[in-house]
Parts: sequence; structure tokens; C-alpha cells
Amino acid sequence: MQDAILALQGYWSARGCMIAQPFNTEVGAGTANPATALRVLGPEPWAVGYVEPSVRPDDSRYGENPNRLQTHTQFQVILKPDPGNPQELYLDSLRHIGIDLDAHDVRFVEDNWASPALGAWGLGWEVWLDGMEITQFTYFQQAGGVTLDPVSVEITYGLERILMAVQGVTHFTDIEYAPGITYGEVFAQSEYEMSRYYLDDADLDTNRALFDRFAAEARRLVDLGLPVPAYTYVLKCSHTFNVLDARGAISTTDRAASFRTMRDLTREVAHLWLRRREELGLPLGRVEPLPPATAAGPVPVTSGPATALLEIGTEELPPAEVAAAAEQLRESVTAGLDASLLGHGEVRVATTPRRLVLTVADVQPVEPGTTKVDRGPRASLAYDADGALTKAGAGFLRSRGAEESQLGRVTEGEHEYVTITRTVEGRSAGEVLTGVLGDAVRSLRSSRNMRWNDPELTFSRPIRWLVALLGTEVLPVIVSSLAAGRTTRVLRTAAQAEVDVRSADEHATLLLEHDVVLDRQSRRQQIVDGAHRLATTAGGRVDLDAVAATVEEVTDLVEKPTPVLGRFEDRYMQVPSVVLVTVMRKHQRYLPVVDDDGALLPSFVAVANGSCDEDTVRAGNEAVLRARFEDAAFFYEADRQETPQDLYARLDRLTFETRLGSVADRSRRIATLATTFAERAEADPDVRATVQRAGAIAKFDLTSQMVVELSSLAGVMAEVYALEAGEPAEVATALREMEMPRQGAGDLPTSTAGALLSVADRLDLLTGMLAVGNVPTGQSDPFGVRRAATGAVRVLRSVPELGSLDLLDGVTAAADLLRAQGVEVSEETVGLAVSIAVRRYEQQLLEDGHAVDDVRAVLPLATRPGVADAVLAELEQMSGRPDFEDTVFAVQRATRILPSTADVDVSAPSVLDGDADRALEAAVTRLESPAGPSLAALVAAADGLRPVVDTFFEEVRVMDDDAGVRAARVLLLRRLDAATSRVLDWSQLSSSAT
Amino acid sequence: MQDAILALQGYWSARGCMIAQPFNTEVGAGTANPATALRVLGPEPWAVGYVEPSVRPDDSRYGENPNRLQTHTQFQVILKPDPGNPQELYLDSLRHIGIDLDAHDVRFVEDNWASPALGAWGLGWEVWLDGMEITQFTYFQQAGGVTLDPVSVEITYGLERILMAVQGVTHFTDIEYAPGITYGEVFAQSEYEMSRYYLDDADLDTNRALFDRFAAEARRLVDLGLPVPAYTYVLKCSHTFNVLDARGAISTTDRAASFRTMRDLTREVAHLWLRRREELGLPLGRVEPLPPATAAGPVPVTSGPATALLEIGTEELPPAEVAAAAEQLRESVTAGLDASLLGHGEVRVATTPRRLVLTVADVQPVEPGTTKVDRGPRASLAYDADGALTKAGAGFLRSRGAEESQLGRVTEGEHEYVTITRTVEGRSAGEVLTGVLGDAVRSLRSSRNMRWNDPELTFSRPIRWLVALLGTEVLPVIVSSLAAGRTTRVLRTAAQAEVDVRSADEHATLLLEHDVVLDRQSRRQQIVDGAHRLATTAGGRVDLDAVAATVEEVTDLVEKPTPVLGRFEDRYMQVPSVVLVTVMRKHQRYLPVVDDDGALLPSFVAVANGSCDEDTVRAGNEAVLRARFEDAAFFYEADRQETPQDLYARLDRLTFETRLGSVADRSRRIATLATTFAERAEADPDVRATVQRAGAIAKFDLTSQMVVELSSLAGVMAEVYALEAGEPAEVATALREMEMPRQGAGDLPTSTAGALLSVADRLDLLTGMLAVGNVPTGQSDPFGVRRAATGAVRVLRSVPELGSLDLLDGVTAAADLLRAQGVEVSEETVGLAVSIAVRRYEQQLLEDGHAVDDVRAVLPLATRPGVADAVLAELEQMSGRPDFEDTVFAVQRATRILPSTADVDVSAPSVLDGDADRALEAAVTRLESPAGPSLAALVAAADGLRPVVDTFFEEVRVMDDDAGVRAARVLLLRRLDAATSRVLDWSQLSSSAT
Repeated sequence: MQDAILALQGYWSARGCMIAQPFNTEVGAGTANPATALRVLGPEPWAVGYVEPSVRPDDSRYGENPNRLQTHTQFQVILKPDPGNPQELYLDSLRHIGIDLDAHDVRFVEDNWASPALGAWGLGWEVWLDGMEITQFTYFQQAGGVTLDPVSVEITYGLERILMAVQGVTHFTDIEYAPGITYGEVFAQSEYEMSRYYLDDADLDTNRALFDRFAAEARRLVDLGLPVPAYTYVLKCSHTFNVLDARGAISTTDRAASFRTMRDLTREVAHLWLRRREELGLPLGRVEPLPPATAAGPVPVTSGPATALLEIGTEELPPAEVAAAAEQLRESVTAGLDASLLGHGEVRVATTPRRLVLTVADVQPVEPGTTKVDRGPRASLAYDADGALTKAGAGFLRSRGAEESQLGRVTEGEHEYVTITRTVEGRSAGEVLTGVLGDAVRSLRSSRNMRWNDPELTFSRPIRWLVALLGTEVLPVIVSSLAAGRTTRVLRTAAQAEVDVRSADEHATLLLEHDVVLDRQSRRQQIVDGAHRLATTAGGRVDLDAVAATVEEVTDLVEKPTPVLGRFEDRYMQVPSVVLVTVMRKHQRYLPVVDDDGALLPSFVAVANGSCDEDTVRAGNEAVLRARFEDAAFFYEADRQETPQDLYARLDRLTFETRLGSVADRSRRIATLATTFAERAEADPDVRATVQRAGAIAKFDLTSQMVVELSSLAGVMAEVYALEAGEPAEVATALREMEMPRQGAGDLPTSTAGALLSVADRLDLLTGMLAVGNVPTGQSDPFGVRRAATGAVRVLRSVPELGSLDLLDGVTAAADLLRAQGVEVSEETVGLAVSIAVRRYEQQLLEDGHAVDDVRAVLPLATRPGVADAVLAELEQMSGRPDFEDTVFAVQRATRILPSTADVDVSAPSVLDGDADRALEAAVTRLESPAGPSLAALVAAADGLRPVVDTFFEEVRVMDDDAGVRAARVLLLRRLDAATSRVLDWSQLSSSAT
Repeated sequence: MQDAILALQGYWSARGCMIAQPFNTEVGAGTANPATALRVLGPEPWAVGYVEPSVRPDDSRYGENPNRLQTHTQFQVILKPDPGNPQELYLDSLRHIGIDLDAHDVRFVEDNWASPALGAWGLGWEVWLDGMEITQFTYFQQAGGVTLDPVSVEITYGLERILMAVQGVTHFTDIEYAPGITYGEVFAQSEYEMSRYYLDDADLDTNRALFDRFAAEARRLVDLGLPVPAYTYVLKCSHTFNVLDARGAISTTDRAASFRTMRDLTREVAHLWLRRREELGLPLGRVEPLPPATAAGPVPVTSGPATALLEIGTEELPPAEVAAAAEQLRESVTAGLDASLLGHGEVRVATTPRRLVLTVADVQPVEPGTTKVDRGPRASLAYDADGALTKAGAGFLRSRGAEESQLGRVTEGEHEYVTITRTVEGRSAGEVLTGVLGDAVRSLRSSRNMRWNDPELTFSRPIRWLVALLGTEVLPVIVSSLAAGRTTRVLRTAAQAEVDVRSADEHATLLLEHDVVLDRQSRRQQIVDGAHRLATTAGGRVDLDAVAATVEEVTDLVEKPTPVLGRFEDRYMQVPSVVLVTVMRKHQRYLPVVDDDGALLPSFVAVANGSCDEDTVRAGNEAVLRARFEDAAFFYEADRQETPQDLYARLDRLTFETRLGSVADRSRRIATLATTFAERAEADPDVRATVQRAGAIAKFDLTSQMVVELSSLAGVMAEVYALEAGEPAEVATALREMEMPRQGAGDLPTSTAGALLSVADRLDLLTGMLAVGNVPTGQSDPFGVRRAATGAVRVLRSVPELGSLDLLDGVTAAADLLRAQGVEVSEETVGLAVSIAVRRYEQQLLEDGHAVDDVRAVLPLATRPGVADAVLAELEQMSGRPDFEDTVFAVQRATRILPSTADVDVSAPSVLDGDADRALEAAVTRLESPAGPSLAALVAAADGLRPVVDTFFEEVRVMDDDAGVRAARVLLLRRLDAATSRVLDWSQLSSSAT
């Protein structure tokens, strides 16, 4: 291992990096070392490499886990500015420490990085070596809250993992650290003891006091204008925070508050540092931006239709971004061409993780010619009375280099002018395309963009090369520092990594020859076919439906899919499949192999990129999975030593939110609330019993080690552990379903008990968080308030039994429970909670494509989304039906006057006078008869309403002079309004009456 | 610089060292890193190298000092076990980082190391490169209070200093850290800001709180049995302590208490660590001790007188140890030879820093033969009545293989026995010497001994080789793992570093041929001559008297003196010479060049070892001195910005001892005490005025930066600064002299005012420290209590005016002042203080060679040492004079009876009866007449006493039956005792009376 360190030091030193030292206070990562955290700020160049023993109290495993350590060894490299080829430099460094890139599968898998405590973020990847994350590779965009210019490249090697792979060992303790000395012999004791400290023995009171002292000292030093020592104390804060966190002593609000403290301090440190470096005159100088590129040659000329090609070569794009970028590129070029007159065929875009390839078929050589009319002076001024050219007329001719015979006339407004009509030739295809393609590259954006060494461009990942061809000729596209050529890049590990493209038409074929499958559909099919073939050899199959998302993702992760079959030890099969599958798919992007019944087999398919040594890659992936499964099995075994009740009892220790109590408090509130809802919904006794039992241990799995580690399994593990503990299946299901939907659009509970708990869970969160002031703002909803509201609404809409549950009642009940616990919940808060939920409902309806008028019309019912849904369905069905239209007309006509009657004294004895009055009264009474909000019933009851209303308004004056008559008529109309507005807000509907 | 680091990592890695990382909490030195502090414990092998940015808050200089940094970069190497040639490996590593050992002067200069906070110590050197300390080289003997077995070699490179030398720059900021980047460009800001923190801005309250928290956490972790995290917290304690110290916030007692805390914790950590490693089964294995050496050949035989030679080759011995070791060796071999019968000539020992060379001239080939008488059975049993041999007699003969004719007889006691007399041949010279020389090496000890890789030997420094020859033949001396041969080692930088010695007689010549001057006197002369010659070229001379000690020391620091002349910039001449000279002599062992009047010139002579490039060595030494002078000038300038009064005012902030108040309190007590003494001694008004004024600012220089840095200049700087501030010369002198004597045998004050202040200073310390319980024990006197007593006594003895000052009075006065300040001082403490002082006085007298009886005789006067001195002088002068002897006889005879008269009732009316009584009364009355303790006066008054006493005892009975007579006679004798014991304790003297 030390040889690897020496090799890396030597390698990067030879490439201009200064070799620095680990920092002398505990840091969680090399990034936190001032040699990164401060040096990436400002305009000075900086290239550095150093070892950093990185302390992650949370990763403590007593030295037992194969590749998880409380202190792991990073090798950190910072390149500022981006040298333009950092990935290539990095890969070369791997070769230097003995990794055979031809044998292994090395991939750049999207992984963005953000450190709230450092006020920093960047975009990049984790680098996988046969499925194992060995390096974090990031383009730093911001640090200390400061946007970085120039951007720094950060490369963070995980040395233990790399060495395990290089040395072919399966546990970090077996790494040969120095000749004849293993890692374990040297460090195992420390791993054990420090784990003891971080997990079991660190004194909480001491560490809390240290945090405060460190923070105060950092604050003082910031105020004294000393960024360097101040930053040291920020780091001490951070480590202390991590210790407390590992001890489970950080509540949600502690976390938020601590992060705020550290972020604010870091931001001030960063600004101070920048100021100080300026004052010192930038001792290391200033990075010069790259100069603009110069064109490779002239604009080509074509003589017949030709294919145009633009290849935008990037570093590995995030799978989720590829399709959108392709579409954007296509639209952008199409629009550009549409704005020209150039004839062309289809515009298509193909993608791989490293390239967007646009082709335009049948590009005509030139735009058709056009004519252009230049207007001269008025005819009356151009010619004299004799019809001869005046001086002005002659001047116009001369200025256009034309002759008198070319003069024409045009009348504009009241005047006639002389004109000259010129023929304008069309631009060449090369000219048009050079502009259009350049603009397309320049305007390319993704949902999250970054900067690199280019002074102007910004995109999801760096754009490193451009190929632009028209037929066989290079289009001299220039975009900032990039000039297009005909050289493309293929797999980095290929013997020949750069290849010249002779013509636009042969591009795809050429790539294929060099192991890059440009066609996405082909890649996908290769994956599916390969996976099937391999799964069969393992006696199973791949369940394509279950892994569809993973297949799509993998398709966008490789340029040349190479499926490899791996196995894992049977002993891990004792761990619940759901855990194993989650680990394989979510963490590793493997396709699990299942038998005919869909039961998991101990095999998986990994998809490598390009050619490799399959045995090597298989062994590597198996080792990674073994480590992950080891973790999972460890947690699973540990968790099973305890009953759900035991785990539930520990919820006390988990702070949910300081002001809202522990998670245990929250669990109890949810249980009570769900029981209440069950009663209101008049649920079956079975359902109530299930809610009762599940509520009594609600969220118990949050204290299980498995869920602490894999939080996405919350609820899922509750089900598993509950079943194992002998709980009824309904209870187990309810425990799982109470966590659904997991995201905005996630799956919903299917059981009523689960749905009740889910709604209770979400309304408690919604109400509680608002009560303590965590109100979501425009972009920011850190506590998931909006998500909770969305979830509650979706569940209510989806489960018929709950359709009649009223959000206002629910929130009020939640508020009462919080109040009983001493939380202050104002009526305003209750109102705010309901209105947030209603707004989410409205948005769901609009997103589902319902007409805005209809949606608005049913909003009065929105606190009972199920009811509102039903009415909306009726509304949409009835729309256009004459009886319905008549009803609309009648109601709108009858109620339109109401606002102006607000002041009418209706206390006078009501006098109903005449037929029209009486007819209306009879109609209103009919309208009042249907119970509940049913539009159909109402419309039925409104049969004949329209003529009655029409007659009423034609024959009588509402505002009669007689007070009694007036009162009677106004009251009548108000009754009509009340009866109809139970179902709809009729004013939102358009009708002939308006 | 990073190339040097990479080179060192590569070098040591190739030599089996593991390359570790700096520790991730602040450490003051690489030693503190657990990779050293813990790993040197126990039997496991360990070889490691690592960089350690070492934080020394105290060395903060805002980046301004040329080679002092708050964080300097160490490269730390630990070799366990000692590989046997660590110095050679080290020198080779210097070559690896580009140091030309032929050009530079590299020396190993004694520097032992101890860390109270780590409970650790070791013996070794600082390595000098052209006078600059670039490395600490230590054989670790103890760590965490545990004696180390095996011993570890610690090599600590100071990289900045090495790189400054290699790159030839004079300020650390100018070091090229990486290509194109200077150290300053990267680190200057951090140096400035961290200096600000450590010197000015660290919050004291926070750091005190941190210390306590860290210590408590360490304690908990020790109790939990977790040495690794516990040790981390010890280190955090240590750093926090250093921060507080740099801020000047650590008092003497704080320091002691903090050190105790850290030492205790470290000790417990060490024991825990050892236990844990044993429990883990010593993962790294166990160091095997070196096997015993085997003899190189047979014992040689000589045919005539020959010279015997023993060369004990060592690593560089401390200069102060060489002479004693030589003498010990000579005595040991002489004694060994004396115990044999071997004839031999003179035994001589010559020394260099790296060898003790013993020669025995004219060793005879063999011991002379001897006879041995074996006693058999009684003659009466050996022969029967017939005179024939009995069975017993025959058996005796047989057992000795003798014949009857050889039987003799001997009478012992009352019996006669048969005997056989055998001739025993003498052993050969080779045999005798092999044993004697081996024993001599084995028993060699110095005042402070160490262990290295040898399993048995222990000495001041490692013994690495032995040459033992008898004439031309090797004596097969075997000492533990060492076997003597004929190969010696010369200068390590020599082309041929090992040379074979053909014969004992040519050894010295051979060494000389190889540039090792074995003869100490020659070396000394070469230094003196060279220094004179060089000083002359610089227009001055070397004041040999002033630098005698330095010359002696340097003589024992080099094997081949190479004096080199250096200069320093004139601008430093503005700094007081005493400072410059102190720096040159004490820190650098340079010989300052002075002019004819003894005034300093800006030149110095450094003495390199062996041949070197003089320009290189000169430049290096000049650079070192420049840095040191820069520091001194910095302090001097800073101090001169303030008046003595300003500095004095800050003494308040310097805690002397928590319970004894601040240094300001102490200064005030000293002033008062000295004034009191001046009055008692009836000093001149001038002296009193001087005491007054000096007392008013006593010790003000302790807050000066110069003294904080160079504590040996305390008092000296007071004089300088006082004069500059316009104080009278007498006051300035008194301020300097009050700090004298500096060590036990140091120079004494010459002015009365200085002496008064000195005594006051010492009695305050003596009394105060005893009052708070800091009583010195056998070996330990950490607070200098005994030294204070010695100093006070010496001053009192040396200044006639103070001769009559009584220690009891002085201590009582000191006690009263302390009491006035609220310190409890018991009478017992006062008694203890006086008795300690008296004991020191007694010891001084004995060490000065006074006879023990005489010394004891004057002890009753010892509280006035001047008086006792005078009486002792009289005593020694009178010794043997008849009148004196008579007096002794008379006094002893007269007083001998007194103990048995203790019970006599002397209240009866005294009846003097008869001539003898009356004659004695008259004589006693005469004895009572001289005032003061003068032996001469007393002896004169005792003229004729003896016959009177004799007559008295012959004629009367003291214990007369008459009570009145008995009382009168006893009283008379008691008066005689009282009169004479004023001057002497006569019972201690031997005389004919006893």
C-alpha cells in the first residue's frame, strides 16, 4: 500500500502537483484539508496531491467489515485549473499503481457531491473498478458559498479499496501495507478502539461542549480576520459533530442548526481568505483563461446533398440527462435550420454516455437564392417634372451600383417610392451549419450545469471535443476554446483512443468498429440479451419488468455493454431478498437473477463497459457485493436479536425534531391519529384492530441497523421484522405501507390500515413542521412539508374508504395531539396546512390534465379529495349535456346578483308574493333535497330550474321596495346558492350565461 | 522540498520502513505520533518513516524569523530494534537528498531528550550540518514511563533547515517547495495567522476549558481500557497546553500540574497498550535479541614484551563523559592486571569522541609460575602407626596424581596435615588480557547510561566495535554481541571508513594517517592555533581565558579539528555583546573573535570535524548564526520599546507558584528581605540605596522577550536594560548579581548589594517552596530548593559584610513575609530550611577537603557560615599547637561528665569550697570574657586551664554528698561548657583526652 502511495506521489508530482501533507486535525475527507477547501478559492493556480487519513466516525465497524473503516486513507488531488484531460491523467495514474485497465472495468458513474457544512458542491462521478467505488472525481463548482472561477478538478482515491482490488484480497485487514506487514497487523487495534469510541464510548456532554467551544473560537477568529486558524476550528466543529452523530446524538434540528453554524463560518472564512490572498497580491499568480480556438480551415463547399454530422464529445453524462440533452440539441439545430432556407432531411440525435451525435440528412449545398427590394427616395423626388432622374435619384442608383433600367416603384402609405430589386444568393450549407451547430453547442444546457476549463461553456459535464463534418469535409465550428475537427475518441482503454472520421456517413460504423455502440436501442438489446443468456446459464432468468429502470440506466452508463455473470455465496440468501435486491440494484446497478417463480437466485448480471477480462471483472464485482452483503447480513443478524418491541422502545432516543419530541412521540401521535381516522371512516373492525397493533409499534424499524444504514428500506424492514416476530400479515403490511408513497409519485398503500397510517403520518409531519415554523419556500422544502401534503392527498384520493376523510378534520386532530404535547399550534397554522394540501391537490389535478375551470370548480370540495375527484369526474362527464348546461346557466343567473344584495336586511318578515316567487321556492326546495355532494343528483334535482329562474328574473324585481318581499327573494337566492355550492363553485364554469 | 520528502520516503521504505502518515491531531513533534509514542513500547519490531508537520506554538514568529516556524516539517524515522548502524544509514540518507558529505561538516553533538509530558527520555545527539541543527537522533530508553526493551532509534529530520542548507537560501520562505513554488508562497500566510493565534489571539478561557475536557475524556478512555483514543486526547491536552504556554498563561504550578496529568495519563496509556498488544498476540511478532558473538580466533601467544591495545569504538560520546570514562577504563584494566601476576608497563588511555583507546606497554608473555599447596587428611590419619600410608593417605595421593615422595606436612591449629605442593604455570598474556579487557568493556559505565541493540551492554552511547591486539595479534575478546578484531573505523566521510590495524604500536599513527587525531592535547592545540591564526586574519584574537570551557568541549567534539572563520553582519553588533557571545558559545560552540581590548568583533571561529569545503561550511555556519542573531535582535528591539518599569509591571502576570503568588509578589518579598538584611548587616547607606532601587524593579527582565527565550540571560539582560534606561551602574550590577550564583559552583556576586539581593532571593525560594511542601527528596529537587540553599550559603561565605548574617534570622524574616501574604509557614518549616542550608554548608566544607572532625566541630556556628569559616580556619591553624591541644583536653575533660549530671538539683545554694573549685571558677570566668566566636581569643583565655581542670578532677568529687557543693561544681562545669561551645563543638575533636 505504501508503494501505491509513493507511486501516486511520484506520479502527480511529476505532473506538476505539489505534494502536501494530511491535515493535523481530524477531517472527514481530503476535501476538508485547507489545501483543498481554501485553495480552490480565488484565481490562483493550484495543483496538489496528498494522502489524507479520513475520519468517518459513522463508518466505524470495529474493524469487522471488509471495506468499511472509521479511518480510511484517501489520496487527494486538486488540479486548478482543469488541465483539460483530468480523466485521462487519472486513468494513467491507475496504471502507475499497477491496475491493468485492459482487464478491469473502470467506469465513471454519476455522483454529485455537496457538503452543506462546507457550503460546497460539485458535479462528477464515483469511479468504479469492477463495481467498487474507488475514487470520487468532482469538478468543484462552489466552496464556502463562493462560486469558483476557475473551477478545480478534485480526484479522491480510496486507497484501501484500490489496494484490495490490486492485491486481490477481500478484507482490508489483509492488505499488505508494507512488505511483510498487513494492514490489520498495524491498524486493526486502532480500528477497534476508535470504533468503540465513536460508536459506544464518546462522552456526549464533553463533545457537545467541545462543539460549542470550537464554534465560538472559530467565530472570534473570523471576527479577528484570521481565516486560517478560524478554519481549523471549523474542522474541529465538524469532527465533533460527526462524533456526536455516530453516537446517535444529533436530532434533526441539531443537525440543521449545526450545519448552519458550520456553513456560515465556512462562508465567512472563504471570503476572508479571498480578501487576504488579494491583499497578499495573489502570491501564486493568476490562472489565465483558455484562449478562443481558431478555425481548422475554410468553410467547405458541397455540390450535392450531403449528410451533416455534429459529435459533441463529453465526459460521462448522467444517465438521466442524456435523453433531454439529445432532444434539446435536436430542437436547437432544427430551429436553427428552420430559420435558414437550407434544404435538409431528417435531423436525428444518437447518444452514448460520452457523446451526443446529431446528423442532418440530405443537406442541400446552398440555400435557394432570394430577392431583396431596396427602397429609395420618393418617386416625386427621384424624378423631376420631366421624368428625368434628379440628383437624389441618381445618387440612389449610384449607391446601389445599379442602372436606371433596374428602378421600380412601390407605394407605401400615401407615397410612392423608387426601388431597386436585388437577387441575394443563398448561403452555402457549410456557412449555415457552421453557425447553427456552433450555436447549438453554445446553448446546450442540462437540468444541472457546471463549468470546467472553458471560459464560456456550461453543461452537465465537460465538453471535450467536437467533430463537425459536412459529408467528408470538416465544418469549421468554433465554440469558445473548442474547434471542431474530424477526430473522435473511442473507449479510453482502446489501443487507439482517437480515430479520424472520414465522412459523416461512416461515423456510426466507425464507432462500432471501435467498440462504441452508438445506437441506444442496440445497446439496450445487447444488455437484455446478454443478461438473459447469462441468467440461463445460472439456471434462472432476469425479470425485465422488475429491473426495467436499471436496464435503462445501465444502457446510458456504457458505450459497449459487456454483461458478466457473478455469483454470491448462498449464505447471504438468509438475508431477505428485498434487502439483497435493493443493494444489487440501487447500489450496484446489477440485474438480479431469479427463478421461474420470481424467487431470487444467488446470481446477478453486472454490465461492464467495453472489453475486459471477464474473470477479473467478475471477481471484483463479487468482492464488492460480498462486502455489501456482509454489511447487510451483519445488520440483519444484529436486528434479529431484538423484537420489534425492543426496537420500538429505542425510538425514544431518536430525536425527531427538538420541539416536536422524539420519534417515539411522533409514532404515538400517528397511532392515535390513525385510530381516530379509522373511526371517522367507519372502517371495519379488522382494519381498526390492524391499525391499533401496527400503531403500537409504528416506525420501530427506524432504530434497526439495517434502516439506519439503508434508509430506503424503512417500512420494508418493518414488514420483514414484524413477520419474523410473528405479527399478523396485515399488521406487517400496514407497517410497510405507512411509509408509502416514498416519493411524490411513488406507489401507494393498498390496504386501508396502511393508508390510514400513511395519512396520519403525513398530516402529523405537515402540521408539526408548520407549527414550529418550518414553512417551505419557493425552491426549498428541507423538511419535506410539501411532500407530506402531496402524499396525504394522494392516499386519500386512492383509497375509497378514506374518500370522505376531511383534511381540515385531520389536520385539526393532528394539531390537537401536538397541543396535548405542549406544542403551540395556531388556527392559522391549521389553515396553512390545509391550504398547502389543497394546493397540492389542485396541482395534481392540473398535472393530470384536467381543465383549469373544472378543477377550480371542484376546489370547494378539495379538503375531501376523494369526493372532489368524484364530482370532477361527474363534471367532466356531464360537460356539454343540455340538462347540465341549463343548470349551470340557471345557477349562475340566480347567484350573480348575490354580491350586490349583501347589505339587504333579511330580518324583515319574509313575504313571498306571486307565482314566480313560489315556483322558485319549490325549485330551491327540490335542489336542497339530495344528500351529499353528487353532481348527478343535483342536476337531476335541478330539472326545470332554468325556466323557473328565467321567469323569476323576468317577472319580479329582487330588490323590491317592500322590505319583506325583498328579504324573501334574497333569502330564496341564498338558499339556491347554498344548495348548489355544496357541490361546485359554479362561478368557475363557463356557460352561455356569462 | 517535496522531492526531499519523496526521496526520504523512498530511501527508508527501501530499507524496510513502513511509510506512515502524519497524525491527525496537532502534535509538537513526530515523536508524539502514536506511530512512535506507542509503537516503541513492547517487544514487537517496528520500522517506520513519516512526515510530521510539528506544531510548536512557542516558535511562532509571524513567519518573520528565518528558520523558526510555528509549524515545521519533520521527517521521523523509528528503527526498532536498533539495526546496529543507524548513524551510517542516516548519513547515507542525507546523501540521498543531495547533501555532499565531503563538503559539509556533519556532526553529532550531544543532546539528550526527555519529554516530561510523555514520561519519556532517551540519549543521543542533535546532528549539526555546518552548525545548524538539522536532526535529532535519539536512542529511546523509556516511553510512557516504561523502560524500553528493545530500544528504538529515533531520527527526526528538520526538513526546512535541511532544505535551506541544500538550496542555499537564508530564509525558510525562500525554500523552493515544489518546482516554481516557494515555501513562502504557500505557507507564509498560515505562518502569520497561526502565529497571531498562538501569540496574541487564542482565547485563554476556551483553551483552559478544552484542556480540562480533553484530560477528562482521556481519563475516561483509560478507565474504559482504550489506549488508542485515550492517547489521542492526551495529545489534544498537550497541544492545548502548548497554546496556553505560548500565550504566557502557564504558571510554574500550572505547568507541574499539567505535566503530571499528562504524564500519568501517558503512563497508563502505555501500560494499557502493552497489555492489549499481548492480548492480541503481538501481531507484528517479537524482536529476537542479538546472539552472543563468537571468537575470531585463538588466544595469541607472544614470545617477548608486547604492547596491548584495546580500542572501544563508540558513537559520539558526550564531551563531559569522555575523561571519566577513560579514567574508569584505565582503573578497571589496571585493577584487572593487578589481580593477575602478569608483568606490564604503563597503562594509558587516549580518547576521541568516538573511541576510548587503552594501551598497556611491555606486556610480558606469561605470568610467572606459582606454587599451590593442597592440604590432605590429618597426618595421623594419612599414616598408620607404622608410618605407612593409610587408605586415606593413598586416596589423597591418587586424587592429586602425585607420588608419596611429594607429600609434605603443615600444621594448622592443633593438627598436622599432609600436603602436596604443586607448581602452577602462569597464564599467557593473551589469556589474562582477553579476560581483563572483556571485563573492562563489560563494566564500563558513565554517569548516564543507555541501552542499544546489544542484549547486555550499557554505556553513555552505543559501543559499536572493538579492536583488541596484543602486539600484532588479535585478542579474542568477546563482549556480549561484540567480538574484537583488528578493524577500526575512521571518519565516516572518509573514502575508506574502515581500516585494519596491523599492530598495537602503529594504531595511533594509523589513525593520524586517516585524519583522526587520537591525542587530545594535539587536538586542543590544533584548535587553539587554528583559532588564533584565523582570528588574526580577522584583525583580532581569541580570548582563551574567556572561552576555555568551549575549547575543552570542542576538543571532545571533533576527531580532526578544522577551524573555520566566519563573519556576521555588523548590524548585529548593536545587540549587546553578552547576548551575541552567549548565543555563539552556548548554542553554537563558536569562539568569538575580540579585539585587543576584549571587545567583540563581528567574527567567530567554528571548529568543523575532518576535511570539508571551508566555504560551504563557513556559509552554513554564518547562516545559522544569522538566524539566531535575527531572533536576538528581534527580542532586543522589542524589549527596548519598554522601560524596566513597564517590564516589571508585567511580573504580575507571571505566576511563580500558585500558592506563593506571582513573580511580582516574589520580587517584592525579595526587595523587603534584602533591605532588612542590609540593615542587620549595617551596610553603607549607598549599598542600602542600591538595594532599595534594585529591589524596586527586581527581576523585571523575566518578562523581556530575550530572557523568555534565553533564560540563561536572566539578570544579565536586567543589567543591560537597566543601564540603557539610565539606572545607576550599581543598581544594574546588583540586578545582575542577584541571579548569581547561577549553578551550584557558579560565580558569586561581587557587590554587597548584589549579594544581599541574592541571599534574599534564595532564602525566599527556600522557605517558600518548603512551606508549600516542595521538599527535595533523594535524587529529586525539581524546584531547586537545595540549589537555593547552597547559593545562599556560598554568598554569605564570600561577602565579608554579610558574614554575621544568621540563616535562622534570614529564614525567619522570609517566613514572616510569606506569612504576611497568607502563606502558612510553620516553625518546623523554618527549622527544615535552616537545617537544609546547614547541611549544604557542611557538604561544601567536606567537598573543599576539610577534615570531618573539624567540620563537625564548627557546625554549631553554621547558621553564620562566615563566622564558622573563620573559626574553622583558626581551628586548622591551631591544630597541633600545644596550647590548643591543652585547651581541647581541658574542655573535653571538663565537659565529659556533664551528661551524667543532668539530674543534679542545682537549685540548692551553691557552696564553692576549696582552692580547686575557686581556681576553676576563676578560669571559667576568664573563658567567659572574650566576646564573639574567636577561637584564638578563647584559646588565649584558656591559658592555664588544663592544670586547673586536672587539679579539679583530681582533688574534688563533682558529685559531692553536699547538695550545695554538688550544685556549685555542676554549675561551674556547665558555665565552662557554655563558654567554650560558643565557638566549637569540642566533643568532635580528637585529643589525648579521649
